Amino acid sequence: MDQARTGSPRAVARLISLVEDAAPQLREVMRALAPVTGSAYVIGVTGSPGVGKSTSTTALVGAFRALDRRVGVLAVDPSSPFSGGALLGDRVRMQDHATDPGVYIRSMATRGHLGGLAVSTAQAIRVLDAAGCDVVVVETVGVGQSEVEVASTADTTLVLLAPGMGDAVQAAKAGILEIGDVYVVNKADRDGAHQVVRELRGMLALAERTADSWRPPIVSTVAVKGEGVADVVTAIEQHRTWLERTGQLGKRRHRRVVEEIAAIAMTALRARFGELDHDQRLEALADRVLAGDLDPYAAADELVDQV
Amino acid sequence: MDQARTGSPRAVARLISLVEDAAPQLREVMRALAPVTGSAYVIGVTGSPGVGKSTSTTALVGAFRALDRRVGVLAVDPSSPFSGGALLGDRVRMQDHATDPGVYIRSMATRGHLGGLAVSTAQAIRVLDAAGCDVVVVETVGVGQSEVEVASTADTTLVLLAPGMGDAVQAAKAGILEIGDVYVVNKADRDGAHQVVRELRGMLALAERTADSWRPPIVSTVAVKGEGVADVVTAIEQHRTWLERTGQLGKRRHRRVVEEIAAIAMTALRARFGELDHDQRLEALADRVLAGDLDPYAAADELVDQV
Repeated sequence: MDQARTGSPRAVARLISLVEDAAPQLREVMRALAPVTGSAYVIGVTGSPGVGKSTSTTALVGAFRALDRRVGVLAVDPSSPFSGGALLGDRVRMQDHATDPGVYIRSMATRGHLGGLAVSTAQAIRVLDAAGCDVVVVETVGVGQSEVEVASTADTTLVLLAPGMGDAVQAAKAGILEIGDVYVVNKADRDGAHQVVRELRGMLALAERTADSWRPPIVSTVAVKGEGVADVVTAIEQHRTWLERTGQLGKRRHRRVVEEIAAIAMTALRARFGELDHDQRLEALADRVLAGDLDPYAAADELVDQV
Repeated sequence: MDQARTGSPRAVARLISLVEDAAPQLREVMRALAPVTGSAYVIGVTGSPGVGKSTSTTALVGAFRALDRRVGVLAVDPSSPFSGGALLGDRVRMQDHATDPGVYIRSMATRGHLGGLAVSTAQAIRVLDAAGCDVVVVETVGVGQSEVEVASTADTTLVLLAPGMGDAVQAAKAGILEIGDVYVVNKADRDGAHQVVRELRGMLALAERTADSWRPPIVSTVAVKGEGVADVVTAIEQHRTWLERTGQLGKRRHRRVVEEIAAIAMTALRARFGELDHDQRLEALADRVLAGDLDPYAAADELVDQV
């Protein structure tokens, strides 16, 4: 653990494996790390498959390294059999930074239990934070509920779109139009990029905002050539300044920790139900419901009283 | 409530509305109904959009009515903005049975809270059961996790497929190939129906089964003409006989009630966390985590101790 705090990549990797496995030692580790966390800035990168998330992440890492920031990257794979392959291919490109001691790159699998992805991502962020990362980029694969949950662990969320795939209408359907702090239209040198920007602008204009609200900028990039990446970094810095000035940074992080604590507590309670099941008290309640002696709500009350 | 038990459609409708709204009176209602539930046989009908679920349900209802059984139908709509429209159109066909006093038809919306769909479906089934339905058909719209959860509330689950849409490979991806007790290939008069049956047979052959296992039959139908519907009823009856003979019926129902009680208890506990949030105890825990004085696991322990 001390090695992880001084930045040993192997020690960091070991701790993140504990997070993935939800290992019993994790509690101890998190207790020890608590005093040395809270300084990393967390950036979420999300969007449909094919929009260029990994290329954009790689370019962003380069930009932050040029500013001499230490960077952690978490590539979160929600265990989908369909995204696994693409992930491996994408990882290869990230090799640009593989030998840079100021960069940690880590793919994360998860057991897929409810709320598990968001909770384990939060713990992995803490590990990278304690290891001295100034910036942690969390890249999510695929689109769906897990994206929204993982995005809620970020200080600034980038939503990526590209012409042809993952257009604005699809993004709206996937529910990721509400979660972006910065919108990036990647592959901006392709046909249809202007159209995506226009659609996106139209949809964002529909959102209700007050005079004090953050107005998410739209940045065009060609990540594979590095074009526009500096503008993305500027947009992130502007969002960060806004978050700090308005006190939203503290509020967001507070809300995030509240959700995290509640999710861990729910998991712990669910596990206790499992134990009751095992020692047949829950089984006995079910028998009484089946016999018509008890309704399920009254049974749930008894269950809650027993844990 | 007494009116519901004697089968007044309006009284039944009122009780199911209480279920949908998760109204406070629901606890009382379920307490009163508990002694008079447990006799209905529950049939789940699921499959991709377009395979003919509503037509098949309508035909099944007709077949059970011909056997003089009282039938309840619950059409569960997981609040998807995309399935809402289709649902309304499909309902029109169900009008065949609209004036039959032996049939209750009810679409069910839900608030979409976690585990909510399965729990509220289970309560609505209890209401129909108490109202004297011999058979309750639960039809789910769309495909996904909610299907699997709702299917787990059924004694016999029918998985529908049709040529062209919702083929066997898609069904496998959607995770519904594991949950079927009876497979129905509808629109069997169309090109490609034999192909679907063949694919399905191949995929089901891959499942590991012991000598005592139920081997899900594949029934071909043209539901819109009523063809094959009697075979579906026969397959359901055979599955029921198997469930009773092997003791699986009791085990399934027991497992179902265990899950139901646990889900209600989890919802109740989550609500208590919300109260703690409101009275600022959870907020205070989050502040301590943010300050690095506490790790999230220790905070979750304190939270659990407080509820």
